[in-house]
Amino acid sequence: MAFSLSTSPKFCPFFPISAKSSPFSLPSFLYFRSPSTLFHLVPPSTSLLKTSIIPCSLNPISTPTSSPSLRCHPDYIPNHIPDPNYVRIFDTTLRDGEQSPGATLTSKEKIDIGRQLAKLGVDIIEAGFPAASKDDFEAVKTIAKEVGNAMDETGYVPVICGLSRCNEKDIRTAWDAVKYAKRPRIHTFIATSGIHMEYKLKKTKKEVLEIAGRMVRFARSLGCDDVEFSPEDAGRSDREFLYEILGEVIKAGATTLNIPDTVGITLPNEFGQLIADIKANTPGIQNVIISTHCQNDLGLSTANTIAGAAAGARQVEVTINGIGERAGNASLEEVVMAFKCKGEYVLGGLYTAIDTRHIVMTSKMVEEYTGLLVQPHKAIVGANAFAHESGIHQDGMLKHKSTYEIVSPEDIGLERSNEAGIVLGKLRLVLIFGS
Amino acid sequence: MAFSLSTSPKFCPFFPISAKSSPFSLPSFLYFRSPSTLFHLVPPSTSLLKTSIIPCSLNPISTPTSSPSLRCHPDYIPNHIPDPNYVRIFDTTLRDGEQSPGATLTSKEKIDIGRQLAKLGVDIIEAGFPAASKDDFEAVKTIAKEVGNAMDETGYVPVICGLSRCNEKDIRTAWDAVKYAKRPRIHTFIATSGIHMEYKLKKTKKEVLEIAGRMVRFARSLGCDDVEFSPEDAGRSDREFLYEILGEVIKAGATTLNIPDTVGITLPNEFGQLIADIKANTPGIQNVIISTHCQNDLGLSTANTIAGAAAGARQVEVTINGIGERAGNASLEEVVMAFKCKGEYVLGGLYTAIDTRHIVMTSKMVEEYTGLLVQPHKAIVGANAFAHESGIHQDGMLKHKSTYEIVSPEDIGLERSNEAGIVLGKLRLVLIFGS
Repeated sequence: MAFSLSTSPKFCPFFPISAKSSPFSLPSFLYFRSPSTLFHLVPPSTSLLKTSIIPCSLNPISTPTSSPSLRCHPDYIPNHIPDPNYVRIFDTTLRDGEQSPGATLTSKEKIDIGRQLAKLGVDIIEAGFPAASKDDFEAVKTIAKEVGNAMDETGYVPVICGLSRCNEKDIRTAWDAVKYAKRPRIHTFIATSGIHMEYKLKKTKKEVLEIAGRMVRFARSLGCDDVEFSPEDAGRSDREFLYEILGEVIKAGATTLNIPDTVGITLPNEFGQLIADIKANTPGIQNVIISTHCQNDLGLSTANTIAGAAAGARQVEVTINGIGERAGNASLEEVVMAFKCKGEYVLGGLYTAIDTRHIVMTSKMVEEYTGLLVQPHKAIVGANAFAHESGIHQDGMLKHKSTYEIVSPEDIGLERSNEAGIVLGKLRLVLIFGS
Repeated sequence: MAFSLSTSPKFCPFFPISAKSSPFSLPSFLYFRSPSTLFHLVPPSTSLLKTSIIPCSLNPISTPTSSPSLRCHPDYIPNHIPDPNYVRIFDTTLRDGEQSPGATLTSKEKIDIGRQLAKLGVDIIEAGFPAASKDDFEAVKTIAKEVGNAMDETGYVPVICGLSRCNEKDIRTAWDAVKYAKRPRIHTFIATSGIHMEYKLKKTKKEVLEIAGRMVRFARSLGCDDVEFSPEDAGRSDREFLYEILGEVIKAGATTLNIPDTVGITLPNEFGQLIADIKANTPGIQNVIISTHCQNDLGLSTANTIAGAAAGARQVEVTINGIGERAGNASLEEVVMAFKCKGEYVLGGLYTAIDTRHIVMTSKMVEEYTGLLVQPHKAIVGANAFAHESGIHQDGMLKHKSTYEIVSPEDIGLERSNEAGIVLGKLRLVLIFGS
């Protein structure tokens, strides 16, 4: 699964991190829930910042356990990415994540999370489903106005996206909420699998095809030049019908085509093949961005997302901590760190512009606000993810950190707690705030 | 990734579940930690058993959302599986899982979990690391005597395995603990990656090669005819050296070769290729079983495990809830349900003999005993895994369950809470005990 794409990624001369202040005030100490390993958040200080902010590397190889390096976001054009190796991160914590049972957020919490996602450098924030309620509408509108206009020195500002079913009322409401952003996007969807069309929509293929094209055209007619379309339950949809409906919405003006494995039923090779088939068979596909959206019902969402990118997707839909309906979505931190560890070596140079040093802070914020606990052994952000228990592992770590460590804790915003530089007991968690 | 293997699996005429009584006493009600979705454990009752125990299906196709069906364990021969499509489940909850920071278990808890793993029908229980302490030794010995001799009507009894480093003292101690089981196994390991040999072991390739062969021979000399060997950090080891050392231990009498991705650094296609390469290049490999052991540092352990099986591994090492060092291991419930949903259709007929109706009960026991919380959105066993929040999803579920459900809650030991048969709010969790 190697790529022939060889364009060198741009490296970022700025630190977006230093240009923003944190809107999020946490208690001085918040303890992780691990029985033996204690992590805590400490207030930011200048001395911590000195050790945490490391200049962008000019070395194009992102090695495991390397220091953090930041890469710039390419210029934003809805249906085209100037660098073919760049993968856009579409965060849907505020929409699909907030759909988790019990995860309802207040408007203020949504705005706080939106600001934090901008610190991470996500390309697109799906801020909500404006037609769902007045509160949802207002929260999306506020995020569009505040987060969607805070451009940094590099020219980065996140796209603000609103979800809508394929009907005029939803689409108009979504547009009325997101239009205040510098880069607004409407995301509209309709189910395309046999079981969904027959039992849920009670519509024929022909009707679904007509509605999809008409509604994308309607979204464009409102003045929105950035329209994403999703064929819901694509993982179980008839391939020929998928190519047809995707071709139709491209003609109607869609700029991103998102391919959801809505029920989390595909294995990575199947999902990769689905993306490859769509890329090979959909008329006009070269003029749009292909996206992935993988649910986690079998625990395969991260692998499926990476397989989708390897097969040609250049946007991946993810959530912080992997939250979402049922077993959740692909988790931003796992996908991003997999690209960071393996993008250069195994995935032909694929990369993102995420500032990974904000990962732990964002994870804690989402955990606290949603009340959805992160288990201790959650990859990347779990309390035990960098802790070593067995004597054999501790012995190895004391002799050489790379024996059992592939990601540097510092890369995601953690600080080692002991002089040997490994996490055996207490681990200090550093908040990297703007200066 | 389709297989040409076409041997039909055997179907099980018995219900091992009904032949055993539960040694595990739980409080009457234990609540999951989801903010809005309430699950609770209720004491077993005859009426519940009537709805939970479903006869083995004679239909060889295991479809998503199908009723539970049990398949027999093939006859146990250490280095050979009579059915080429059968995948052995090696559970290491009591060894690698117990290595999780903060997860220390008492001897009684270990024995309870051992008994519960036998109810699940795991093929091999790695009961501990006998040389680590006197308590560990005694716990493994007790599990070997009690769980390792409780053969059921089908002839099933789990293999009891003890871990040991590659030295005579460890191996002798492991044998002294497991030899009481009807099917004892010694699992010995030594690191084979450059970084581990240079910094941790401080030994040359030649020395490691000699030790591995000599220690496998020593294990066999004690009277143990079931010896597993692991080249630690195989994912980062030199391929040619791997083939050489694996060939050497086969000559010395190893019956299972376990290939660990010790640091969780591989992507699924890489790990599958590693297994395929070992299968193609190791002298004598046709006479042994290849096994996987995938850590979860990048969130890819389930996908890597399935990729390994698809490439020829016929044993997979897993833990309940995916617990283990750092970000844990491949989770038994995810791997087993992936085989159940996709084994027939996508993986050429691969299957296991796990009685999936015990999954939730086992998950809860391990969560309670280890104190390692399961996050609400954990695949298969999380409190939200079968809950539907959004209006669109609830509407679909009310019209047809297959719109958003690929695994039946009943398949893993849950019972639906409302008449519509979908989980929207409260969900009763049924303990399936023996009669």
